Amino acid sequence: MAKLNWGMIGGGERSQIGHAHRLGAQADGLFDFVAGALDHRPEAGRKYARKLGINASRAYGDWKEMLACEKDRTDRLDLVTVATPNSTHFEITKAFLEAGFNVLCEKPMTMTVEEGEEITRIAKQYGKICSVNYCYSAYPMVRQARAMVRAKELGKIRLVVTNFSHGHHGNAADADNPRVRWRYDPEMAGVSGQFADCGIHALHMASFVCDDQIKNLSADFASTIASRQLEDDAMVNFRLTKGTVGRLWTSSVAIGRQHGFELQIFGEIGGLRWFSEHPNQLIYTPLGGRTQIIEKGENGLHTEAERLSRAAIAHPEGFPLAVANMYCDLADAIRGKPRDALPLAEDGVRSMAAVYAAVYSAKNNGAWTEARPPMFRT
Amino acid sequence: MAKLNWGMIGGGERSQIGHAHRLGAQADGLFDFVAGALDHRPEAGRKYARKLGINASRAYGDWKEMLACEKDRTDRLDLVTVATPNSTHFEITKAFLEAGFNVLCEKPMTMTVEEGEEITRIAKQYGKICSVNYCYSAYPMVRQARAMVRAKELGKIRLVVTNFSHGHHGNAADADNPRVRWRYDPEMAGVSGQFADCGIHALHMASFVCDDQIKNLSADFASTIASRQLEDDAMVNFRLTKGTVGRLWTSSVAIGRQHGFELQIFGEIGGLRWFSEHPNQLIYTPLGGRTQIIEKGENGLHTEAERLSRAAIAHPEGFPLAVANMYCDLADAIRGKPRDALPLAEDGVRSMAAVYAAVYSAKNNGAWTEARPPMFRT
Amino acid sequence: MAKLNWGMIGGGERSQIGHAHRLGAQADGLFDFVAGALDHRPEAGRKYARKLGINASRAYGDWKEMLACEKDRTDRLDLVTVATPNSTHFEITKAFLEAGFNVLCEKPMTMTVEEGEEITRIAKQYGKICSVNYCYSAYPMVRQARAMVRAKELGKIRLVVTNFSHGHHGNAADADNPRVRWRYDPEMAGVSGQFADCGIHALHMASFVCDDQIKNLSADFASTIASRQLEDDAMVNFRLTKGTVGRLWTSSVAIGRQHGFELQIFGEIGGLRWFSEHPNQLIYTPLGGRTQIIEKGENGLHTEAERLSRAAIAHPEGFPLAVANMYCDLADAIRGKPRDALPLAEDGVRSMAAVYAAVYSAKNNGAWTEARPPMFRT
Amino acid sequence: MAKLNWGMIGGGERSQIGHAHRLGAQADGLFDFVAGALDHRPEAGRKYARKLGINASRAYGDWKEMLACEKDRTDRLDLVTVATPNSTHFEITKAFLEAGFNVLCEKPMTMTVEEGEEITRIAKQYGKICSVNYCYSAYPMVRQARAMVRAKELGKIRLVVTNFSHGHHGNAADADNPRVRWRYDPEMAGVSGQFADCGIHALHMASFVCDDQIKNLSADFASTIASRQLEDDAMVNFRLTKGTVGRLWTSSVAIGRQHGFELQIFGEIGGLRWFSEHPNQLIYTPLGGRTQIIEKGENGLHTEAERLSRAAIAHPEGFPLAVANMYCDLADAIRGKPRDALPLAEDGVRSMAAVYAAVYSAKNNGAWTEARPPMFRT
Repeated sequence: MAKLNWGMIGGGERSQIGHAHRLGAQADGLFDFVAGALDHRPEAGRKYARKLGINASRAYGDWKEMLACEKDRTDRLDLVTVATPNSTHFEITKAFLEAGFNVLCEKPMTMTVEEGEEITRIAKQYGKICSVNYCYSAYPMVRQARAMVRAKELGKIRLVVTNFSHGHHGNAADADNPRVRWRYDPEMAGVSGQFADCGIHALHMASFVCDDQIKNLSADFASTIASRQLEDDAMVNFRLTKGTVGRLWTSSVAIGRQHGFELQIFGEIGGLRWFSEHPNQLIYTPLGGRTQIIEKGENGLHTEAERLSRAAIAHPEGFPLAVANMYCDLADAIRGKPRDALPLAEDGVRSMAAVYAAVYSAKNNGAWTEARPPMFRT
Repeated sequence: MAKLNWGMIGGGERSQIGHAHRLGAQADGLFDFVAGALDHRPEAGRKYARKLGINASRAYGDWKEMLACEKDRTDRLDLVTVATPNSTHFEITKAFLEAGFNVLCEKPMTMTVEEGEEITRIAKQYGKICSVNYCYSAYPMVRQARAMVRAKELGKIRLVVTNFSHGHHGNAADADNPRVRWRYDPEMAGVSGQFADCGIHALHMASFVCDDQIKNLSADFASTIASRQLEDDAMVNFRLTKGTVGRLWTSSVAIGRQHGFELQIFGEIGGLRWFSEHPNQLIYTPLGGRTQIIEKGENGLHTEAERLSRAAIAHPEGFPLAVANMYCDLADAIRGKPRDALPLAEDGVRSMAAVYAAVYSAKNNGAWTEARPPMFRT
Repeated sequence: MAKLNWGMIGGGERSQIGHAHRLGAQADGLFDFVAGALDHRPEAGRKYARKLGINASRAYGDWKEMLACEKDRTDRLDLVTVATPNSTHFEITKAFLEAGFNVLCEKPMTMTVEEGEEITRIAKQYGKICSVNYCYSAYPMVRQARAMVRAKELGKIRLVVTNFSHGHHGNAADADNPRVRWRYDPEMAGVSGQFADCGIHALHMASFVCDDQIKNLSADFASTIASRQLEDDAMVNFRLTKGTVGRLWTSSVAIGRQHGFELQIFGEIGGLRWFSEHPNQLIYTPLGGRTQIIEKGENGLHTEAERLSRAAIAHPEGFPLAVANMYCDLADAIRGKPRDALPLAEDGVRSMAAVYAAVYSAKNNGAWTEARPPMFRT
Repeated sequence: MAKLNWGMIGGGERSQIGHAHRLGAQADGLFDFVAGALDHRPEAGRKYARKLGINASRAYGDWKEMLACEKDRTDRLDLVTVATPNSTHFEITKAFLEAGFNVLCEKPMTMTVEEGEEITRIAKQYGKICSVNYCYSAYPMVRQARAMVRAKELGKIRLVVTNFSHGHHGNAADADNPRVRWRYDPEMAGVSGQFADCGIHALHMASFVCDDQIKNLSADFASTIASRQLEDDAMVNFRLTKGTVGRLWTSSVAIGRQHGFELQIFGEIGGLRWFSEHPNQLIYTPLGGRTQIIEKGENGLHTEAERLSRAAIAHPEGFPLAVANMYCDLADAIRGKPRDALPLAEDGVRSMAAVYAAVYSAKNNGAWTEARPPMFRT
C-alpha cells in the first residue's frame, strides 16, 4: 500500500508540536513527509525541511508559496498539517481547504466562533476533511471509555468531571518570559488564557466520551497572578444536551501538577476514571461492585481500543502514539473509510463557542450561558 | 495523670460514629468513658452503655435525664460528645453548654445559621469549649500542611482545590432505602443534601489549611437521581477573605470513588496535595523543583504534625486516630492548654452560613453570594 | 462487660512499641492498664507508670517485683505484655507463664530454637496463652487474604513472594549510633541482623496467609556496610510443606523505602497483593480476569476481615489498630473464645528455627537447609 | 539528511515484535524500510512486505535469498534486524555480519555461550555493529538512572534489586497452547524457560544501570506448573564485579502482574526505583532526604535522558519509543557516532553465560557459580 503524501506548515526546529506531528505521521509508515513550510523565517524553514529529508523543490519559505506550488502537482499532498501560531490557523486552513486539501489543524482551530463556522461550512462545501488535533481523544483507553458509554455499560451518564491542570506558569517572575506572557495577553491570545489553551481539550474530551454536546455553562475565571489580563485558572460547570452534569477545572498555576488531565465519568450503573499521565489504564467500577483496572491490550476490549493499540498489555504507549492514532484515523478517512471518532471542524467551532460563553459567564456573575455555536442551535 | 471523665449522647450499637468516638476518646488513655445516653430507645441505650462497661447509675435513658443527673455530680463530666441526629444537635449542645459542660458536637453543629450563632455566643458566655468534629483537620499531615502555610513555605496562597466525593448513594434503587433517603429529603436533612453532609468537611478543611475564612461563593447543585429533592452533587467556587480562589466538588453518586477527600493547595512558591484515603503522605512541590513525598513520622516535621503522630514513619495511622487527635486536643484544652487548631462553634456556624449561601446561589443562576455568618461580617 | 486487667513489662517513655501496645490494649476499651514495670531504671519505670495513671502499688521497679506481687493478687493480670530487649524475652516470658499468666511477647520470642521450644512446651503445660506480636497478620486485609486462601479462592498456592525492606540503616556514618549498631553486633543481636529483625515478620506472614509452614530454605546474606558483622540485607528462598515456592527479601539499606512490607500470593486461579504502607486495600486478580481492588469495609468480606474493621470503607485504619486487633483476639482467647489466627509460641519457635537455618545456609554456599524446629519435624 | 536503509528478517504479519521494530525504525524518520524476509512461509513474507510498501524486488522469500541479493547492491542495507525464532538468531546474525552488514538481533542473541562468543568475535573482526535488543535500557529514565550512577550521585552501589514478573502463563490449561508450551520445552527453548525469556532483560538492566558486570550467581528455579520441564519462576542472587549485591526475581505465573519490570538501586548516599509500566518517572531518595519524583522531560536531566525524550514533561512516552531509541542510537553509531549505552554482542554473550550458570546453580543446591563468559574472565 503506497504511503500518503503529507506536508506541514509550522512546526519548525524549536517547536515541540512539530516533532510530535512528524512522529505521529511517520510512526506507522502511513505517510511520507514530502513538503513543508516549517518556519516563519523562510530560509530557516527551507533549511530545516531539507535537513528532515524533504526535497528542495518542496521545502517552502511560507505557506502561500507552498499552496501555490502544491495545488498543481499531480503527486499533491493528501494531508496538510497546520501547526502555526493560533491566530493564523483560520486563514491557512481556509485556503488549503478551498484548494482541495485535507487539513489537520492544531487547536484552537480559530480565534472566533464565526471563523469556526466558516471553516466548518467550507470543509463541507469542498468535501474535504478538516480535523482538529484533539489528540487525547485518540488514546486507546479513551476510545474504550467512549465505547463503553455507547454500549450502555455505564447506563445513562449522570456526571462528567474533568480537569486539566498544570503548574508550569506558576512563577510570577515569568511575567516577562515571552513563552509564557503571550498566553495571558488578549492582544495575542484572544479572549481567554488557560481555558482556551488547555480547558478546551478537557471540554472536547467530556463531550467526546459522553457522546453528547455541551449545551450551556457557568464559569469562574481567575488571574491568580495579578499582572495577567487573562485567566490562569478556570472552573466551568456545564450541562450536556441529554442532561449530564459537567464540571471542568483547568489551571496553569497548580504547582506540582505536571500535565494532569483527568477524566471521570459517572453513570447510573458504573463509573470510569482515566488519567493522561498513566494513559494505559482505565479504572472501572460497576455499581455495587469492586473497582477494576482495565488495561490497554487486555483481551475483550472494544474494537476502537484494540485497533489503536500497538504493543502488548502492560507495554505502555504514550502521547506521541496518541498523535499517531490521529494520523491512523486520518489515513483511513482519506482512503474513504470514515472514522467517526475523528475530531472535525464541528468540534473546533464548538470549542470556540464554549470559550466565548465561558468568558461571558465569568464576567457576568457566573450566569448560565448558551454554549452551542449558532449553527448548531436547534 | 488522672483520666478525664467523658460521656456520650447518641452513638448507639448500630452507629458507626459512636464506635469512632469511643476509640478516639480511649485510644490514648486520656478519657474514662463513664456516662452515656446512647440510644433514642431508653432501654436499649442503658443496656448498651452497661455492656460497654458504664456503671448502671450513669447509663441513661435520654439526654435530659443525663443532664439532670450529671450536672450535680462532683465527679461531673469533663466532656460530653453529641452524636445524635443532626436536627437535635442544637438543643442538646445548648443545654449542656448552659449547664457548664464542654461539648464536642458532631457536624453539622446546627441546622440554621441563627442556631449556630446562638451556640457560638453561649459557649463564649459560659466559658466552655464547644468543638465540632471536623476530624479530618486533625490528621498529622493536614496539620503539617497548615503549619507550612503559616510558615509561608508556599508563599501567598493563590488557590485551594478540594473534593469530597463518593459513590455510595449512586444506586437509584436506594430511593426507598431509609439509610439513604432521608439525606435528600428537606423534611429531615434541611436545605442541603450532599453539600451539607460532606461538602462542609471540605470547606472547613480549605479554610483551616489556608488559615483564612470563606468570604463568598457561587454554587451549582444537581440532583442527578431525579427522585431526590436535595442535591447529590455540588460544585462550589469561593473566595477566601485574603483573595485565595477556592474550588470544591462534592458528590455522592461518583461510583467508584470510595471516600475520596482530596485537598490541593497552590501558593506562589509551592504546592501541596493530600488525599484522605492515604493520609500519611503529603505531596509537596516547591516552585521549580521536584515533587517530594512528606511522610508522617519523618524527621523535621512541624510540631503540630509530630505531636499527633503515634507510630514511626511508614507505620500508617488512619481515620480513628484522627478522631483520637481531636480528643487529644480537647484534653489539652480542657486542662487549660488551648489548641488553636481545634474546630470550634465559630467553625460550625461558618459552615452553616456557607450552606445557606450555596443553596441561594444554586437557585439564583450561580450568583456570587456572601458566605460569612452575620456575626462575622465586618 | 468488665475490662480485662493488663500489665506491661518494658515499653518505657522513650519506647515506641510501648506506646503502640498501650494504644492497642486500650483503643477498644477491652483492657484496663493496671500494672507495669516499664523501664530498666526502676525509679523511671515507676514514675512513668504513675504518670500513665497506674496506681502506685502496681507501678513496679522491675519484672521480678511485678511477678512476685501480681501472682498473689485476686485481681491479677489477665495478660502481661513483654516488650523488653530481645535477650530478656525468654526469661521473663517463661517466668510469667509458669506463674499462670497469659503473655504477649514481642518478637523475636527467644534468641534460640531451644528456648523457643521450651516456651512452647511451658505454655502448653500450664494451659496459658503465649502469643507473639506478629501484628501485621492482624490487619483486616491480611485476614481477608488468608480467608480467601482457605476458601480456595486462589486454588492451590504456587508461589508466595514477600519483602520487608527499609533504608533507615543505610547511613554508614551510623556505625557508632547505638540505636543502630547493636542490631548488627552478634554480642547483642544474636546470630542474625536484618533477617531476625524484619525478615521474620515477612516469613511469618507468608506461612500465615498460605496457611502452611516453612519446610526448608536457601539464603544469601550480605553486610553491605562493611563494618557490620551481621547481615543488613538478606534473600531467602524457601518451600512450604505443601510445595509452595517462597521468596523473601529483607533489607535495611534500601534507601527510599520507608517500611515497605509487601506480600504477593499466586495460586492456580488467582493472585493477591498487599502492601503494609497502604494496608486497607488488597489487590486481587482472578485467572484470566481483571485486577480488582478489595477495600477494607466493603460488603461481603470474609468474617475475619469484617470482624477486625472499625471504620467504614475508605476510612483508613493503620498500624496501631493492627496491634489493637491482636488485643481483640487476645481478649477473646482469654475469655475462652480461641482465635486460630492468633500467633502463638509455636510461631515464635518456627521463626527462630528459620533464622538459624538461614544463617547456616548463607554460610554454606546457599545450601538448602531444613527450617522446621526439631519439635515439629515429622 | 538521507534516511538509512533498513531491512528486517522475521516480524511477519502475526508478530508483535515486528510491529515494534517497524515503528521503532520509522518513528523518527531515520530509517527507510526497504527490504524484508518477513515470514518463514516465503510467499506470505513477500506479500506482507509488499503490503508494507517494500518494492517487490526487495521483498524476499527467506533470509538466504535476502542476503544473496542485498550484499551486492550499491544501495545496500545500513542495518538488518533479526526477529526470527530464537534458535535461528545465531546463523542469520553470523551470516549478515560476515557479509558486512550491521545487525540488530532480538534477544536472546544465541542459544549457547559458545555461539555468543563467536558472534562477538565476528562483529569485532568485521568491524560491524551487532546490537541486541535490550530495549528497556533505552528508556529515558533508565538512561537517567545510569547517568546518576556514573556521576556518583548515589555513591558506591551496594544493592540492585530487580524483578520482571507477569502472570500470562499462569493458566495450567495452557499446557497445550502452542504459544505458551514451547517456552517450557527444552527441545525448543533450550536450557531455561522464564529466566532466559524475561530474566535476562532484568539481568542486563541491573548491570547496565550499575555500570558493572555480573560475576557470579546462585539460583533457585521452580516449575510451579508440574507439566513444565523448564522453570516458570526463578530467583537469582548475584554479585557484580565491584561487589554490588544483586537480587532478581522473574516469574510467568504471577497472576495479576501484567508485565511488571521493576528496578531498584541502592547506593551509599541514595536510592532509585523505576517501574516499566510507568516508565516516565524515576523515584529518587537521597540519604536522609525525602523521596523525589524525577520526571522525564524535566529541566536538568542528564544528557542521555534528555536526548531520548521527544515530548514535554508529563506527556508519557512508552515501549515503542524505547525501541525507537535503540534505532536512534543505532543510526548514530552507523553514522560514526558511537553510543556507549547501546547493547552489543558482548551483552548478548554475557546473558547467555548467566543463563547457563543459573541452570547449573539451580540443579546444584543453589551453589554460587561463575557467571562471566570464558572470554571475559580475567
